[in-house]
Amino acid sequence: MFKSFTLIVRCVNRHNVYEHVRFASQALPQFSSEKYNVKRKPFNTVEIVDVNYFKSILSEDRVLTEESDVQPYNIDWIKNCRGQSKVVLKPKCTEEVSNILKYSNEKRLAICPQGGNTGLVGGSVPVFDEIVLNFVLMNKIISLDEISGALICEAGCILENLDNYVRERNLIMPLDLGAKGTCHIGGNASTNAGGLRLLRYGNLHGSILGIEAVKADGTVIDCLRAMKKDNTGYHLKHLFIGSEGTLGVVTKVAIHCPVLPKAVTVGFFGVKNFENILQLYKSAKSSLGEILSAFEMADFHSIISTVKNLKLPNPISAYPFYVLIETHGSDENHDAEKLNNFLSKEMESGLIIDGTVTSEPAKMQDAYKLVYLFLHDFRHDTLFFKYSNTLCPGHLTEIFPRVVSSGDGNIHINVTVPQYTKQVASLLEPYIFEEVSKLNGSISAEHGIGFRKPHYIHYSKDPSALQLMKDLKQLMDPNGILNPYKVLPEQ
Amino acid sequence: MFKSFTLIVRCVNRHNVYEHVRFASQALPQFSSEKYNVKRKPFNTVEIVDVNYFKSILSEDRVLTEESDVQPYNIDWIKNCRGQSKVVLKPKCTEEVSNILKYSNEKRLAICPQGGNTGLVGGSVPVFDEIVLNFVLMNKIISLDEISGALICEAGCILENLDNYVRERNLIMPLDLGAKGTCHIGGNASTNAGGLRLLRYGNLHGSILGIEAVKADGTVIDCLRAMKKDNTGYHLKHLFIGSEGTLGVVTKVAIHCPVLPKAVTVGFFGVKNFENILQLYKSAKSSLGEILSAFEMADFHSIISTVKNLKLPNPISAYPFYVLIETHGSDENHDAEKLNNFLSKEMESGLIIDGTVTSEPAKMQDAYKLVYLFLHDFRHDTLFFKYSNTLCPGHLTEIFPRVVSSGDGNIHINVTVPQYTKQVASLLEPYIFEEVSKLNGSISAEHGIGFRKPHYIHYSKDPSALQLMKDLKQLMDPNGILNPYKVLPEQ
Repeated sequence: MFKSFTLIVRCVNRHNVYEHVRFASQALPQFSSEKYNVKRKPFNTVEIVDVNYFKSILSEDRVLTEESDVQPYNIDWIKNCRGQSKVVLKPKCTEEVSNILKYSNEKRLAICPQGGNTGLVGGSVPVFDEIVLNFVLMNKIISLDEISGALICEAGCILENLDNYVRERNLIMPLDLGAKGTCHIGGNASTNAGGLRLLRYGNLHGSILGIEAVKADGTVIDCLRAMKKDNTGYHLKHLFIGSEGTLGVVTKVAIHCPVLPKAVTVGFFGVKNFENILQLYKSAKSSLGEILSAFEMADFHSIISTVKNLKLPNPISAYPFYVLIETHGSDENHDAEKLNNFLSKEMESGLIIDGTVTSEPAKMQDAYKLVYLFLHDFRHDTLFFKYSNTLCPGHLTEIFPRVVSSGDGNIHINVTVPQYTKQVASLLEPYIFEEVSKLNGSISAEHGIGFRKPHYIHYSKDPSALQLMKDLKQLMDPNGILNPYKVLPEQ
Repeated sequence: MFKSFTLIVRCVNRHNVYEHVRFASQALPQFSSEKYNVKRKPFNTVEIVDVNYFKSILSEDRVLTEESDVQPYNIDWIKNCRGQSKVVLKPKCTEEVSNILKYSNEKRLAICPQGGNTGLVGGSVPVFDEIVLNFVLMNKIISLDEISGALICEAGCILENLDNYVRERNLIMPLDLGAKGTCHIGGNASTNAGGLRLLRYGNLHGSILGIEAVKADGTVIDCLRAMKKDNTGYHLKHLFIGSEGTLGVVTKVAIHCPVLPKAVTVGFFGVKNFENILQLYKSAKSSLGEILSAFEMADFHSIISTVKNLKLPNPISAYPFYVLIETHGSDENHDAEKLNNFLSKEMESGLIIDGTVTSEPAKMQDAYKLVYLFLHDFRHDTLFFKYSNTLCPGHLTEIFPRVVSSGDGNIHINVTVPQYTKQVASLLEPYIFEEVSKLNGSISAEHGIGFRKPHYIHYSKDPSALQLMKDLKQLMDPNGILNPYKVLPEQ
């Protein structure tokens, strides 16, 4: 079975070229509760009286109860998970969110917060009949300080819309994801989304300046200050970054937007072996340090399959490994000079066998496609398992002989099989997570834990840390109404 | 009284030029409990039997009980606070810390964790007879991954030692502080120290990859993974970053070290007014984006006083404001060219009246001294109040007509008075904090809350956030033994 590991690519739709690539079968997925054999927790079920209450505090049109209206909110992006919610609520402001949660907490009604529903671990769809709290209507940009780069907006703003908005003001969002055309900034914050700009602009714990979130009991926690430095008391916002809506629901985000780079340059290099790639990474960090925005590697087989299947040109010959380096800088000539100097130096040293550097958008696109695009298998009726794990770069090939990976230690593994079976999953998942765990890696680099991984979290968290997680959950959501069945393993 | 506001400088001993500048009087400060009228909480007092227990788990020489031995650990760096501890413990490993805390928690003995004791808000010295838990002997570097830049070390490592260690391997620490020759990395983490490299390398919530900490009951929480991406469950490490030892004691830190910049360049410019400085900051972020490592401003009066009192040369003429820009980059020629182009462009636009750019270490030192050094007043027998606050850059001059400030929105305010009086403090502190609060600023940019500011924390945290802080404290340290009288205001 592990032959399918040859299909290992970074599952990112860079530049939205393959936005349409999803699981193609239109059949409804099996209910998650049946597929994964989950037992419903003793929450109350939503009654007419509850729906009427929600209609009274929102408006009729923002309370969906028709089965056909509700269905899309029950199914996740990769059509792996399917919940059984009967109600979708679309609040327009924090106060409405607060009222919904206060009521639901008192009535013991479970809630599934939902942003763009682009998650890959089933975190954003209900498992049973949780009320879907959808943020699509909380999409206002509140303020942008063009001098400091501090953007404040509501949780339901779509990442790409924010990026377009700040780009017009000479800034960019500090994160970029394949799903940017759909995902919400609140979801990005709740899942600590990493994505493509991490090497250059750091993670969301560093970029997010402030958070407004609502606790399970409806209390609004306002940590929305938009300053880079604020050292007053506990740094509460981090409780809501990456906790996937289980400790509170993010309603507003303040985030630091870096300056739009004036120049983007891409180098595409052939390399002899993995050891040389590690040396090259170290050298690139030293020679290109401040402009290095991406360092990605792919093996021969991945690239050749892409070249064949997508009929793309390979700008250089056949080599055992390929490295793509991207730079973001403020001076095109300086950046191209740095990258060309780097290429000359490392061709002389032998770390690079052959390579090319370009600032032409069309040529850059070709290089991106070679490294990032899905292979042909994803365009047909196959089902795929998606994993995102992290290892220290030096350990990357200890686990998988062939990978497409990046300078942040992230490996994305897609395994295709004709159809989902429990047997495949039960063989595959422990294998992957155990191997990653042995190398002290993380079983989730960026997709989070969600619904699909709680029973594997012990591979990445020690028992004391897990206990503290449970204590925090008990403290902040004692009735457990927020995104149940997710993140935390059952006792 | 507010005439003393003319003395407003960034209180940073850059390059250790003024390492010796401290409050010069050698008289012992008054006990903090008397000075600030604090009531002792009902902890038990340390008995012989407790001391003997500590001697049994550590060794005799690592349990200080002689008054003269203990005294230095009772007094803070600026000699403002003085505790009454009778015992100092110097553990050598996490297990010892765990045993000490477990025992102290059961016996209801209060603990004051202490790193390099360079804090400015009294957070690192006892108030009453708390046991001092000093980390000076936990100073081992555990590992450095030269490819990823991940450094793992014990909490008691001195920042400068770490910086020297990683510099030999072509890396730097992501933070730099005036106190770097004394402060501990564990203290930096616990206080979320900001410092001089924040504009370029971000804050510690972004740089710290992992934390090992011990809870009040002795439980070791291991979140020490050294990966840039780890999205498995709650991001617990952030609970210990910036909570000043009140939620747990940091014992080990994993931190990301950026590559050592190959070139450092400094520009020193004369500017007409504050509005132009804001425009210049925006322009610098755009033109110098990726290499900009510092942007500091000072007014005419500050610079002229420094020139006169320290007999330093001013490399340019007299102007209403001065701006110092520092760049860190990988190519000296490119950086100098960028900075010179910036200078030419902005002299043409009129934002800069006059300026100079240099990469010569001696000339750079002169420019640093002009902006960073203490004025003469601090070198004599005066007492000073130190404040570090943050405002969005656009608001900086709304509060103080004359400031030395920086691109991260941080303003440092030093007020000198002949001697401490409660009257001065009671006039000064509410004034400063209220003004900062009105502009939605933070009352502590980087020094933390510590002992001296809990009763002002409401200026920066709303009541729900404060309540959540209290809930977290109750959860993680139900007996309140960890660093009592600090951070959290009394009920």
